[in-house]
Amino acid sequence: MTTPQFPARDIGQFSDRHIGPDAEAEQRMLETVGYDSIADLMDAAIPEAIRWTGTLDLPPAATEDEVIAELRALAGRNTVAVSMIGLGYHGTHTPAVIRRNVLENPAWYTAYTPYQPEISQGRLEALLNFQTMVTDLTGLATANASMLDEGTAAAEAMTLARRAGKSSSPVYVVDADTLPQTIAVLATRAEPLGIEIRVVDLDTGPLPAEFFGLHLQYPGASGVVRDHSALVEAAHAAGALVTVAADLLALTLLRPPGEIGVDIAAGTTQRFGVPMGFGGPHAGYLAVRAGLERMLPGRLVGVSRDAAGDPAYRLALQTREQHIRRERATSNICTAQVLLAVMAGMYAVYHGPAGLRAIAQRVHRRAATLDRLLRDLASPQISVVHRAYFDTLLVRVPGQAARVLADAAERGINLRLVDADHVGISCDETTTPAHLETLADVFARLAGSTPGGGSDRAPAEVEVPAALPATLARTSDFLSHPVFRSHHSETAMLRYLRRLSDLDYALDRGMIPLGSCTMKLNATTEMEPVSWAEFADIHPFAPAAQTAGYAELVASLERWLAEVTGYDAVSVQPNAGSQGELAGLLAIRAYHRERGEAHRDVCLIPSSAHGTNAASAVMAGMRVVVVGCDGDGDVDLADLDRKIEAHRDSLAAIMVTYPSTHGVYEGGIAALCAKVHDAGGQVYVDGANLNALLGFAKPGRFGADVSHLNLHKTFCIPHGGGGPGVGPVAVRAHLAPYLPGDPLGTDGPVRPAVSAARYGSAGILPIPWAYLRLMGPDGLTRATGVAVLAANYVATRLRGHYPVLYAGNKGLVAHECILDLRGLTRTTGVSVNDVAKRLIDYGFHAPTMSFPVAGTLMVEPTESEDLAELDRFCEAMIAIRAEIDRVGAGDWPKGDNPLANAPHTAALVSGDEWPHPYPRSVAAYPGGIDRIGKYWPPVRRIDDAYGDRNLVCACPPPEAFEN
Amino acid sequence: MTTPQFPARDIGQFSDRHIGPDAEAEQRMLETVGYDSIADLMDAAIPEAIRWTGTLDLPPAATEDEVIAELRALAGRNTVAVSMIGLGYHGTHTPAVIRRNVLENPAWYTAYTPYQPEISQGRLEALLNFQTMVTDLTGLATANASMLDEGTAAAEAMTLARRAGKSSSPVYVVDADTLPQTIAVLATRAEPLGIEIRVVDLDTGPLPAEFFGLHLQYPGASGVVRDHSALVEAAHAAGALVTVAADLLALTLLRPPGEIGVDIAAGTTQRFGVPMGFGGPHAGYLAVRAGLERMLPGRLVGVSRDAAGDPAYRLALQTREQHIRRERATSNICTAQVLLAVMAGMYAVYHGPAGLRAIAQRVHRRAATLDRLLRDLASPQISVVHRAYFDTLLVRVPGQAARVLADAAERGINLRLVDADHVGISCDETTTPAHLETLADVFARLAGSTPGGGSDRAPAEVEVPAALPATLARTSDFLSHPVFRSHHSETAMLRYLRRLSDLDYALDRGMIPLGSCTMKLNATTEMEPVSWAEFADIHPFAPAAQTAGYAELVASLERWLAEVTGYDAVSVQPNAGSQGELAGLLAIRAYHRERGEAHRDVCLIPSSAHGTNAASAVMAGMRVVVVGCDGDGDVDLADLDRKIEAHRDSLAAIMVTYPSTHGVYEGGIAALCAKVHDAGGQVYVDGANLNALLGFAKPGRFGADVSHLNLHKTFCIPHGGGGPGVGPVAVRAHLAPYLPGDPLGTDGPVRPAVSAARYGSAGILPIPWAYLRLMGPDGLTRATGVAVLAANYVATRLRGHYPVLYAGNKGLVAHECILDLRGLTRTTGVSVNDVAKRLIDYGFHAPTMSFPVAGTLMVEPTESEDLAELDRFCEAMIAIRAEIDRVGAGDWPKGDNPLANAPHTAALVSGDEWPHPYPRSVAAYPGGIDRIGKYWPPVRRIDDAYGDRNLVCACPPPEAFEN
Repeated sequence: MTTPQFPARDIGQFSDRHIGPDAEAEQRMLETVGYDSIADLMDAAIPEAIRWTGTLDLPPAATEDEVIAELRALAGRNTVAVSMIGLGYHGTHTPAVIRRNVLENPAWYTAYTPYQPEISQGRLEALLNFQTMVTDLTGLATANASMLDEGTAAAEAMTLARRAGKSSSPVYVVDADTLPQTIAVLATRAEPLGIEIRVVDLDTGPLPAEFFGLHLQYPGASGVVRDHSALVEAAHAAGALVTVAADLLALTLLRPPGEIGVDIAAGTTQRFGVPMGFGGPHAGYLAVRAGLERMLPGRLVGVSRDAAGDPAYRLALQTREQHIRRERATSNICTAQVLLAVMAGMYAVYHGPAGLRAIAQRVHRRAATLDRLLRDLASPQISVVHRAYFDTLLVRVPGQAARVLADAAERGINLRLVDADHVGISCDETTTPAHLETLADVFARLAGSTPGGGSDRAPAEVEVPAALPATLARTSDFLSHPVFRSHHSETAMLRYLRRLSDLDYALDRGMIPLGSCTMKLNATTEMEPVSWAEFADIHPFAPAAQTAGYAELVASLERWLAEVTGYDAVSVQPNAGSQGELAGLLAIRAYHRERGEAHRDVCLIPSSAHGTNAASAVMAGMRVVVVGCDGDGDVDLADLDRKIEAHRDSLAAIMVTYPSTHGVYEGGIAALCAKVHDAGGQVYVDGANLNALLGFAKPGRFGADVSHLNLHKTFCIPHGGGGPGVGPVAVRAHLAPYLPGDPLGTDGPVRPAVSAARYGSAGILPIPWAYLRLMGPDGLTRATGVAVLAANYVATRLRGHYPVLYAGNKGLVAHECILDLRGLTRTTGVSVNDVAKRLIDYGFHAPTMSFPVAGTLMVEPTESEDLAELDRFCEAMIAIRAEIDRVGAGDWPKGDNPLANAPHTAALVSGDEWPHPYPRSVAAYPGGIDRIGKYWPPVRRIDDAYGDRNLVCACPPPEAFEN
Repeated sequence: MTTPQFPARDIGQFSDRHIGPDAEAEQRMLETVGYDSIADLMDAAIPEAIRWTGTLDLPPAATEDEVIAELRALAGRNTVAVSMIGLGYHGTHTPAVIRRNVLENPAWYTAYTPYQPEISQGRLEALLNFQTMVTDLTGLATANASMLDEGTAAAEAMTLARRAGKSSSPVYVVDADTLPQTIAVLATRAEPLGIEIRVVDLDTGPLPAEFFGLHLQYPGASGVVRDHSALVEAAHAAGALVTVAADLLALTLLRPPGEIGVDIAAGTTQRFGVPMGFGGPHAGYLAVRAGLERMLPGRLVGVSRDAAGDPAYRLALQTREQHIRRERATSNICTAQVLLAVMAGMYAVYHGPAGLRAIAQRVHRRAATLDRLLRDLASPQISVVHRAYFDTLLVRVPGQAARVLADAAERGINLRLVDADHVGISCDETTTPAHLETLADVFARLAGSTPGGGSDRAPAEVEVPAALPATLARTSDFLSHPVFRSHHSETAMLRYLRRLSDLDYALDRGMIPLGSCTMKLNATTEMEPVSWAEFADIHPFAPAAQTAGYAELVASLERWLAEVTGYDAVSVQPNAGSQGELAGLLAIRAYHRERGEAHRDVCLIPSSAHGTNAASAVMAGMRVVVVGCDGDGDVDLADLDRKIEAHRDSLAAIMVTYPSTHGVYEGGIAALCAKVHDAGGQVYVDGANLNALLGFAKPGRFGADVSHLNLHKTFCIPHGGGGPGVGPVAVRAHLAPYLPGDPLGTDGPVRPAVSAARYGSAGILPIPWAYLRLMGPDGLTRATGVAVLAANYVATRLRGHYPVLYAGNKGLVAHECILDLRGLTRTTGVSVNDVAKRLIDYGFHAPTMSFPVAGTLMVEPTESEDLAELDRFCEAMIAIRAEIDRVGAGDWPKGDNPLANAPHTAALVSGDEWPHPYPRSVAAYPGGIDRIGKYWPPVRRIDDAYGDRNLVCACPPPEAFEN
């Protein structure tokens, strides 16, 4: 008998799948960088003062199958009930073809924000469909490419109204029939800006004399459909702007806001095929009338043209965005909800206008049928309050509301408890006659009678009159563009989705070495649970007894995140990094105020910071003071001293990123924290670069008071083409009382709400949960080490070809490195943009361009790229350097060379004419790249300025694409 | 109040998603064809004599969500237990990245068999990986690209041995320790061919003096690992060939069959990441030593070169196949298990040789640990029979086997009941220490003791000696090709899968108008349940109490299939159409024999029949007599009379396809049936073209006695790139007693087994079940009508450009039409192959080439293609006709024109040189096709003959691809 060598380490370790380089590759990389081990490398790179050498107190790594089993058990503790609670969250049928080919397709979900539009035409078209859907349904001129949720969309509408309106009044009037979570988010956002929220019952109360804006809900949270035209006129007469938070499904039957002169529409597109997910993620929307489009916050897709003059999509008016405007920004919105916006837009594409209208009619018929059934009970204890509604009934049951809720819940249906005397019942696409019969039965018991009136006809099939006011009926056409009329068979839809995704470059094709974006693996095992009904089909306001699995998942995730960051408390509510920043700064603000130091309002921000930092500080009511950087790119501690001195009494906080946005472990961080603390300020460490710290340093231990994390960076939530993101806020104990609270105020004293739902984008929290569970303490730590090793490997290999701009200890970078092209640009005219576009020809997504330093490329390889891919990238960059040299040497003219003309499309290189001074093979297949699997960009370089001058943000007519 | 127009028909009808043309398009198509309605068209097309005008007795159509709910309920009636039954079916971890990106990815599952290799390079490479994996692990020279299951692979090995061997003996010796279902399939296959199966206990019994082949199991079904080398020598000395049915996982540790001179290896690759699926589908394998490769049945992928001289993959040695050899064929194998072979091959790619060996070692350690635990009980009632094993223990428990089974089942573990005194226990990749402890506990109770011997160490962690004989240890390397060493991170694997799928053209890109293949929509809702654990993770021999959901699903599916075909009984066991044919013919054979008419052995087959028909008849022990066709392509009834007359006494059956393989509803079908019946023969109607009949005619009512169906055609099982298929056999009542039976003989008198599992590829039966349930009687009927309308629309539009070869009543075709290019070929030299390849440039998969008539294209659009796609195809064909005319006119030379050089790769049209007499734009973007979304074939036209002369059927070295 022989004894085989049983492996010392058990097989099936997920970390070996997540981390690209294997042990052999790791060794080769270490040799190149000049260290014996990752431990040595990290000891050298990370300042002693912050180095943490413990073992993370997390459960040990589990296998993929074990994690799936654990998540199945958690999911099993959630109850999927029939949800008729409404309040902006509705049951919906996600078309299976969209679920499988968008939500579950890496080509869609691993894509990045379309900042490189030439390789993002597919999702840009999908987003243009979304924008067109929103503008058509709302009747407004321009919509952006999605907001985080209805609450934050309404808040952005509020600040937009303040900027655009003529009134100097600080008062913002809010319809009392607005969704309560929207009111909570508005209140959170208004207070630091000095806006006074006035909630008014518009059926009874008059409008104030002066106000700058008016927020209406349509239909109301109570379900009632009101004619708002007189209010709109009155508001306009007062110089105020009007926002309507409208249900897009209702707008297929109801006169849209744009047709009564409304300025802004805001809301959610969740019920267009996006699962409720216990609160998110879904795509909010924001649309404005003509004249306001250049004030719209958020991402806006527009049509421009490429170098061949053909139409091409790209993000429009980017100069509006906070990464450009910084402290002059009016919004910190950065991440959108692209993946969900794509789903909602595709839902409209698949159903088309007639299909959407038919769905709305059926939903309305269900509500009207229930109305009839309740009236048939003829009980004095039961009355339907409103005569005009779309999908929601407000039912008056004096003193019996709780009983009705309990009875319905026992029968598997969740209703809304409005107050002790009223319940709300919302019908949706998934409501069946059987549900109505169950409810009729519940109410009949209350009335002491039996439903159906003795008729043997199924009660839910009775003919009912509709309850939509004729004066509010929609008469205008919508979704008349061919895209909404061409893909109604599943075959056609499947091909359309495939066609669009084939135009794009995502992580499933190759490396996306975007500095500060951490484009690592989004593992399938992490993603699969997102589709499970027990996570997807839960209403955010479902009874706690039905959401025990979610509660446990959130609690353990918050605990684990606190552990890895060294903080004491975490809230996962912020549904994007920007919201996490705001939540963190609001906590600092509240802390100072609580201590009687409300005058502390200065926020120090280094010049190298993310643009969102400054914008968030402004939104939190702070004044931004910029701290300079020294020649090494580090925060200039002398300048810091000066700025602290100048603002010592009013110092609220400093916001720094660590490692810095220059990708360096700054040695002065501990000193920096001490200085700010000594001056009474709080330290905010932006967690964007946490992938360089996990297991090696903990912000909560080295001096920071608060951080937000980006779960879509370090913790594997996919970027989805520009969202969803999740941006939890983590704090030390003294700030814990000021973490975000439940927007419905169910968890004690009302705390600020930065998202519409208590746990934000809860539906995707299984992803980071699974990542932490799969990696365990050792896996997470090794991932950090390999990420830093990979960045140093790239820096080492490329240093001879491009200067590496900044470095820390021993010349080491952290998890990313900056390649400085400014010298080459000066001598050759080849720009960083040329290099970025040329990388497309080599089969890569460009690194981050000109951030944090103009004229540079910032490369973040992450731990998930294997050595072969790292080498392929290095070799492409080296080959490009040789091309730059040929331009510099005059071999090729400055305006006509492979860099200037990049990217090269297949149509260009196969054109009948070839007027360029270099051969087609150099254009198409540089550096011996794989000819067989080459990715071809669908368009040539896009002219941004042209599109901004000629703003078109809806689907162009098909003729525009004719050759 | 206004009353909206509630739609008359409820929304959400699946048939409107499945069927491409909407009502408006249907009307336009009818106008073109010249009919007022589909009913009129069908009345005109279908002969009165067979027209059925009832309503199908099926449940009315359900919505997608309702069907998912119903399938969830059925799934809930299956129990997912821990399966340690073994017998060729094992628990396995499907890597999530493979599940999501292969099994759940339309780019893989909607592909067709790679007969157009230029647009199938991705799956051809994946299959080459599979072949390389099999040859490396078995140590043999050549493996094919998968078999249907281990049982049928063993049967093919038997007939191969008979053809290739020198012995004239009819005896085939089978190791008694062979899987019982394999023995059953061998017996079924042997009898009609006059082969005598001799099952021999090779531990005790001697080999017979004469035999032509020997079948061994390695390791044995009992788990024992024997050294077979002496038996191999003895068999060779007797002039016999030796087949070893080997477990590929075991072969990572054990000396492979090829190293002891074995001629053939057969088996399954199920445990390489393919779920058990209650019996299938999984990929069987068949490998042979050098010298036998040209006798291998089934699909064989080989390397050849393209027009540029670059290596390219394609199916090799196709002349071996039955569609060429017909009645001279030695196998009827047609469909393979491509999708599952791709999964198994990718499992090897993902794990690599070290990973596979580690898995095997862990599995073995589990078995050895259990062995130790049982020995530690030191009970006289319990003994482990064999000292040498890989993963399976045979445990002797005199008189207590049933009790052990019951106790284990109660604890959630299924074991194998060998006999009253023995149980079998198989460990696999999913076996955990906890499972072993549970089993130890079960046995301890039997022994009246407690397990663990008082040690506080977890018993499953004890160190154990291995139980693999040192003399049989594998010393040779395997999977040394870089493909098995390069894709071990999930990121790398994801990209490799994406890269390969991007090379291919499948239904998710566009129409695949393959005549006789019915490439219709494979809807996501039909596909999703296949991944559910309650369907995927069920062992085929699990206790009936655990498979009630499957039983109900199979029963209703068989009932519904009987209803739509007009037969009385159906068996879903045949796991491919070819197996359905064999099963049907075996039923006819048995029927005649039972009636004392064993001499009836002539099978009439029209000259236009599918090649498989003749091959199946030969395998069923029949003599094939060909009946001619008349000038209209119909069966020549006069010739039929002559043939019947000539063989009246020996007439067993006629096999016809209806509508005919010419795509025509032949008027004489009723007469044909009557003539054959009058002569005492049975009528077999090949159900390949059932998509032209459902709802309008029932073979079982118009004269046929038996049919097989192709669930991967009419009933939406995806083609998977060449499998899985399912080919149920349907019979009238008199043949029902002869339907296939359980290969384990558990359902009464032993009936023939054509597959290794009772319900064949049960795991994919939810697909046709869902299709029938979603479409309902009306949807199915409308689908047939639209399919026929679409074929006539194409015929009408193209008739002026290409003669349409055959037609029936009123010049109508059925569901497909034949475009006759022979005249054009004669006058211009442009071949049907040129047109097929040129269609690739236009963005299409070619129609069926040269079947059933050489020099023609057969087009079957199916009901799922919408009008836009049908028009796109017609316009491409019309544009190609104009190109042919230019060749004919001498504008372009015969050997150098867009047709002769098609398909054009991106590399070709962007080459630095362009020596062709037509512009690049004509090559690349003919007929104004969409430039942005163009599909580029990765290779130029492939030279078949070169590859067959220089046969290479394993992965070529990477250097071969260097430019």
